[in-house]
Amino acid sequence: MTEILNCDLAITNAYILTLDDDFTEFAPGLILIRNGKLVYVGPDQPYAPRYKTTETINARNKLVMPAFFNAHNHAGMSIYRGLGNDLVLDDWLNRFVWPMEAKFATPENVHLGTLLSTMEMIRSGTNIFADMYFFEEEVARAAEEIGMRVILGEGILNFPTPHFDNAEKYFTYLEQMVTQYRDHSLVGISISAHAPYTCSDELLKRVSELAAYHQVPATIHLAETQWEYDSYMERYGKTSTQYLADLGFFDHHVVAYHCNYLSETDRQILKQSGSGVATITHSNMKLASGVCPVKDLMNRGIPVAIGTDGPASNNNQSVLMDMRSSVLLQKTIEKDPTVLDTHTAIRMATSNGAKAYRMENQLGSLEIDKQADLIMIDTDQPHWQPMHDVYASIVYAMLPSDVETVIVNGRVIMKDRKLLQVDEKKILHQVKTLMKKMNQ
Amino acid sequence: MTEILNCDLAITNAYILTLDDDFTEFAPGLILIRNGKLVYVGPDQPYAPRYKTTETINARNKLVMPAFFNAHNHAGMSIYRGLGNDLVLDDWLNRFVWPMEAKFATPENVHLGTLLSTMEMIRSGTNIFADMYFFEEEVARAAEEIGMRVILGEGILNFPTPHFDNAEKYFTYLEQMVTQYRDHSLVGISISAHAPYTCSDELLKRVSELAAYHQVPATIHLAETQWEYDSYMERYGKTSTQYLADLGFFDHHVVAYHCNYLSETDRQILKQSGSGVATITHSNMKLASGVCPVKDLMNRGIPVAIGTDGPASNNNQSVLMDMRSSVLLQKTIEKDPTVLDTHTAIRMATSNGAKAYRMENQLGSLEIDKQADLIMIDTDQPHWQPMHDVYASIVYAMLPSDVETVIVNGRVIMKDRKLLQVDEKKILHQVKTLMKKMNQ
Repeated sequence: MTEILNCDLAITNAYILTLDDDFTEFAPGLILIRNGKLVYVGPDQPYAPRYKTTETINARNKLVMPAFFNAHNHAGMSIYRGLGNDLVLDDWLNRFVWPMEAKFATPENVHLGTLLSTMEMIRSGTNIFADMYFFEEEVARAAEEIGMRVILGEGILNFPTPHFDNAEKYFTYLEQMVTQYRDHSLVGISISAHAPYTCSDELLKRVSELAAYHQVPATIHLAETQWEYDSYMERYGKTSTQYLADLGFFDHHVVAYHCNYLSETDRQILKQSGSGVATITHSNMKLASGVCPVKDLMNRGIPVAIGTDGPASNNNQSVLMDMRSSVLLQKTIEKDPTVLDTHTAIRMATSNGAKAYRMENQLGSLEIDKQADLIMIDTDQPHWQPMHDVYASIVYAMLPSDVETVIVNGRVIMKDRKLLQVDEKKILHQVKTLMKKMNQ
Repeated sequence: MTEILNCDLAITNAYILTLDDDFTEFAPGLILIRNGKLVYVGPDQPYAPRYKTTETINARNKLVMPAFFNAHNHAGMSIYRGLGNDLVLDDWLNRFVWPMEAKFATPENVHLGTLLSTMEMIRSGTNIFADMYFFEEEVARAAEEIGMRVILGEGILNFPTPHFDNAEKYFTYLEQMVTQYRDHSLVGISISAHAPYTCSDELLKRVSELAAYHQVPATIHLAETQWEYDSYMERYGKTSTQYLADLGFFDHHVVAYHCNYLSETDRQILKQSGSGVATITHSNMKLASGVCPVKDLMNRGIPVAIGTDGPASNNNQSVLMDMRSSVLLQKTIEKDPTVLDTHTAIRMATSNGAKAYRMENQLGSLEIDKQADLIMIDTDQPHWQPMHDVYASIVYAMLPSDVETVIVNGRVIMKDRKLLQVDEKKILHQVKTLMKKMNQ
């Protein structure tokens, strides 16, 4: 007698892009989900296994693929979206961001801003974001409410912040957070040093040691600007990356954000340490900060993932759009249209995030025993057709709004463009009310 | 007694961005339309004029602004979307585009491909496109069917094409087209030389003379690649732009496409001749063709507009997305975040197209006596909020799918994302059927 697969949710009749190592596709394909995990991904009728299910989604004419991975964000900053544009970084921070944060970076507003960001991320097909901001317990709360994954990163630095007036308090807080979220189904932790130049040597060492002790990634903004590169060379005769390496920061797992200015040695450090990199495209382009040498890092085998950066500097949070701009920019800078082909591009937006954070056994492709995190896409639209190459349509033509349904950890959190776990209208209303206060 | 304005359509209660010289806004604003023209743009109640109207749209909570202008396209090429990606230009043309065009560039398929493209353009808020392709009478027919504007440009060159086996036949055809579409409400004409290197001197001169005679623009692909620049310098000791100028090509109104490789003299030629330029961003980035010196051209007062290029090389046709990439790329290349601010960016996507084609008295801003061509946008979405700066939200966060309603020449051609003049499902079905034939 054949075994019967019991499951909570079946997705039938789909055009499945697994994004596994061989880019296996199934059409018509079937996905079976139990306890938040994929228990079957393969052909649908007439080759489907026998199964019983609580719920079924008929994905006829829909594309089903892994959700997008946002490898770097400051989600709570959405409340500052559009404040100060077309400015150099320092000007923007000094004149707009920091004065506003001094007034408005409260736990309540970080929660509201993050909720707003999670809505935008889910609506553009992202299931997980790595965050770096203040009041990260509020970030966790927002992610749990909407039902998406987050990797928390309370940004540690040697200056007083809206959250803590001294660095010591971070460590007490982080110990508590690590304990609280150990083995949480949606929330993970990283230990985040804000940047080499905002943290003392001692702080950087403690961040690295704490991350190592708890076996979580250390994360950091690294080599974002020419200024950072030049000032380290001038002051220490070495790059900020080399400086961190000499402190032992790369002895444990690191995910580094930006990485626009890297020497040959820096690139070897990133490779040999097994670090992940998040390239930040729109935000770096908008602030003219620089361009990450993505092609070279990828050629070395470093997993380069896509981060949107915060919505205050991007000003949107679509991993898809940042991925498109990233590959187009690399072709332009390298003067070579063959670099970062469509298969590579789509990996950057999905499995490379999982690899950078060492979650590739759980996320990044649709394979049995991985987490049931996926998106369903409506391709029956003019900009998708004719679909001579489905990967080209995703990388070069798809819009974030084409994502109809999002499933995270086996749970449907958006269905036919409707968010199921939160009251979207109410949150938008709260955001508008806050904006009025900010403009008084 | 106060005059009563009679009109066909009233748009009430709108948040109007006129994009006039002063960026005047009205909220709540009122727009009155009669015979395809704007007869009132200004404050709504309590300051509205007295009017009678056949139809009213309540635009409560909607943003209303001029539609986007697509200054360069090959709309009929949508049927090749996704065929051959991540290749150098020659390889892509030789291996994919030309063999497929030899088989499939028929009048029927150009009509179908253009219809598909017009659907995508309307859905992303574009009201007009300047086209260059074969069988342009079919392009006109498609544009008329959906109800959008087009500037035709049958591409003339010295090689046989799917349309004509020799260049002479073009001129007979063009004379007839100019007569047919003189004073047409939606269809305009340009005389298009394909490129300097595909046309003989005689052909280039005749194009220019014909355009001058009929007082329509001459259009041309110009200085797209390093190869074009180098080969003209090597062969003639001058650039392709200078070569055209010496032939007298710039004695009359020209709109030049791409313009990635321009000497100082070339830039002066473009300025002194009153030419318009369409910058092509996604397609040039994807093919690594080069970058148009937009900032410098704009500083000289040359109207630089946004063209999407054909959907086979982009692979989408959203002026909004190409505008965003264009300003982000310029900031990156110039290493200066202050270049091309949000006001400038939005002009590139709207009024600069009108200026480049010398249609600024009819299109590009919402002012009395101009054509009633506008879009209504749903800003009540997470990626728009909070809207501290509406222009920043448009330039950096808006998605093409946020366009809900499109009005061209006073007629509603999309309402609440539904195309009113064509059967979208039927066209998509025809496209899929054609794709099957293409893949046989």
